[in-house]
Amino acid sequence: MPKLPMTLALVGATGEVGRAALDALDQLDLPVKALRPFASPRSAGELVEFQGDDLRVAPLADGAFRGCDVALFCAGAEVAREWAPRAWAEGCAVVDVSPAFRADGEVPLVVAELNAEAIAAFRARGVVATPGPTATAVALALAPLRAAGIERVVVSTYEPASGAGRAGVAELEREARDLLGLKEPDPAARFPHRLAFNLIPQVGAFGEGGATDEEEGIARDARRVLGAPELRLTATAVRVPVFYGEAVAVNVTTREKLGVQEARELLRTAPGVKIVDTPGEGIYPMPMLAANEDAVLVGRLREDRSQARGLDLFLVVENTRKGAATNALQIARVLAEQHL
Amino acid sequence: MPKLPMTLALVGATGEVGRAALDALDQLDLPVKALRPFASPRSAGELVEFQGDDLRVAPLADGAFRGCDVALFCAGAEVAREWAPRAWAEGCAVVDVSPAFRADGEVPLVVAELNAEAIAAFRARGVVATPGPTATAVALALAPLRAAGIERVVVSTYEPASGAGRAGVAELEREARDLLGLKEPDPAARFPHRLAFNLIPQVGAFGEGGATDEEEGIARDARRVLGAPELRLTATAVRVPVFYGEAVAVNVTTREKLGVQEARELLRTAPGVKIVDTPGEGIYPMPMLAANEDAVLVGRLREDRSQARGLDLFLVVENTRKGAATNALQIARVLAEQHL
Repeated sequence: MPKLPMTLALVGATGEVGRAALDALDQLDLPVKALRPFASPRSAGELVEFQGDDLRVAPLADGAFRGCDVALFCAGAEVAREWAPRAWAEGCAVVDVSPAFRADGEVPLVVAELNAEAIAAFRARGVVATPGPTATAVALALAPLRAAGIERVVVSTYEPASGAGRAGVAELEREARDLLGLKEPDPAARFPHRLAFNLIPQVGAFGEGGATDEEEGIARDARRVLGAPELRLTATAVRVPVFYGEAVAVNVTTREKLGVQEARELLRTAPGVKIVDTPGEGIYPMPMLAANEDAVLVGRLREDRSQARGLDLFLVVENTRKGAATNALQIARVLAEQHL
Repeated sequence: MPKLPMTLALVGATGEVGRAALDALDQLDLPVKALRPFASPRSAGELVEFQGDDLRVAPLADGAFRGCDVALFCAGAEVAREWAPRAWAEGCAVVDVSPAFRADGEVPLVVAELNAEAIAAFRARGVVATPGPTATAVALALAPLRAAGIERVVVSTYEPASGAGRAGVAELEREARDLLGLKEPDPAARFPHRLAFNLIPQVGAFGEGGATDEEEGIARDARRVLGAPELRLTATAVRVPVFYGEAVAVNVTTREKLGVQEARELLRTAPGVKIVDTPGEGIYPMPMLAANEDAVLVGRLREDRSQARGLDLFLVVENTRKGAATNALQIARVLAEQHL
C-alpha cells in the first residue's frame, strides 16, 4: 500500500542541504501531505517555508518521528548515528545524506537512477544512505560508460565551501570580505586553513595510507552504487573557494575503445546526466551553472591521447541538490511508493 | 668571457611576472650592473624599484636593446613574437616566459634545474623559452621519479587569476567585491566567464581534439624539458578563484614499483623541489604558502592503490616566480656566465 502522499520529517531543515531539500520539494512534485522540520536546539524556533506555509522548526525529541513515514536526515554524521535508529524505532524510515552509514554493509547506499532496487534492503536498519556529491557525480557519469568496461579511474575534485555546511559558507564569505578589505581574517574554524583565495588539499581526516576519508569514500561509494566491487579508482580531493557546486576532473581507462561520439551518445540518454559540452562557444560545466540543477553536468569530453583507450571529462554537480537533497528525496519517493 | 655583472632589459616590467622578476632579482643575488625596464606605451612612464632606485619604464623602440646582454621578456606572446627577434638583432639574448616560442624546435625550452645544457643552442634564434607554471612544476616533481621509469601521468590543474596577468587579478578582485556587495558583476573580459566563486574549465583556446592549448602545452613542454619525447601525459586545466599560486594534482604510473618513502627520498634531494608533507598536522602545499617561493612545493605523497605501481601527489608553484620569473632569471645567469 503506497504511503503517498507521505508525512515527511526533515532533520537539519535550516542547514544547507535541508534548505536545498525544501527548494527541491517544490520542484520535484513529490506528494507530501505534511512536513515536520527539525533542527538542532540552536536553530529550533526558526521558520521554514513549505508550500506557502511558514513552519516552525522543532528540536529533536522522543516521539518526534511518530506518525512520519520517511525522515530525510540532512544533518551531520553524529546526529544521524544518534537519531536514525530512534526514528526507525518509532516506525519512520530514514534517508541519510551524512557519511554515518555509507560504509555499513547492512545499509543500502543508493543513487536513485542507478541502484534503486537496493532500497528494498532498508529494513535491516531502517536506513538508506546516499553517497557524497563526488561519488554520486562520478557514478552517474561512469554508469553509461560501463558498456565499454571501466578499467581504472583517476579523479581530482574541486569541492565548495557548502560541502561543510552553512558554517563553511559563512567562513568563506567572512574571509573573502576581510581580505578584500585588507584585513587579516580571523583564524579558520570550519576549515583547516584559510579558504578564501586559497586551495586546501584536505577534505575530511587523513587515514593511514595518506588519503583522506573523503578520498577513500569516493572509491568505496562509487563501487557500492555501481555494484562494481573491483572498480579501481584513485582520488585527490581539494577544497576550493566556491560557495556552491562541486566539480570533478575524471580520467577513465576503458577495456574496449570508446570514441568520444559513442561516449556522448551513451551519456545523452543516461538518467541524471545532462551534457553541457560545446566548448568552442564557452559552454561547459561550471558551478555557476549548477544552481537548482538536479542532474550532473558533463562536459569537456575528449579522447585521452596518453593511453590507447581513455577519456577525459569534467563534471559539475550541485552538491546540496543531486549531491544530497534531490537524491534523498528520490529515494524517499521509492520508499513511500514501494516499500512502506 | 662571462658577461657578469650584466645589463638586463626587462620587458613587461609593470606586469605580474615583471614585478615578480624585480622581487626575485633582489633575492637571487644575480649580478646586474644596470636594469632597463620596458612596458607597453600604456604603462610607460611608471616607476619601478630596483636596488633602491626608482627607474622610469620606457616604451619599446628601435635600439632599446642595444648595450643589453640579456632581455627578460615577461610580456605576452604577441610582444615576444614582434620584439624578441629585434632584441637579438641588436645583440641582446632573450629569455621569454610567454608561449610564443615554446613549440619552436629551434628554441631551447628550459627549466634551469633540469636541462640548462640546452641553453647552448640559443643562438639559432637568440631566444630561450621557459615552460608555463604547470609544466615547470610537473617536470621538476617528475624528474627525480624517473629513476623508477615514468609510464603515464594524469594531471589536473588549479590555475590562478594571475596566470592571465594583472588584468586577470583585477577582474577576479572586482567580481568578488561586486558579488559580496550583492551587485551583479560586469561581464567578464579577461576570462571567458565570471571567475569569482566559480571554476572555469578553460585555460587558453580549444584545439581540434577538444583539449585547450594549455592542456596540450603541459604535455608538450614537460616532454621537452625532461628530454622524454615519449612521455604519456594527459591534463585537464581549470581556472580557479585564487590570485597567486598554482596547484596541480598529479597521478603517476611508474614502470617499477616506487614506494612512498623511496619517492620522498628522491624528491628530498631534487633541485627546485621542497617537500611540504606532514598532512596529519595540516601541512601540505597551498597557494597561500607559495608567495615568494622559488621552489615547487610537493606534498600529499601517497600510494595510488588503484594500480600496481602508482603514486598520487599534489604540487603548488608560485606561477609568477618559479613558474616564470625565477626560472627566466636562472637562465639569464647561465647565458651571461657561459654563453655570451
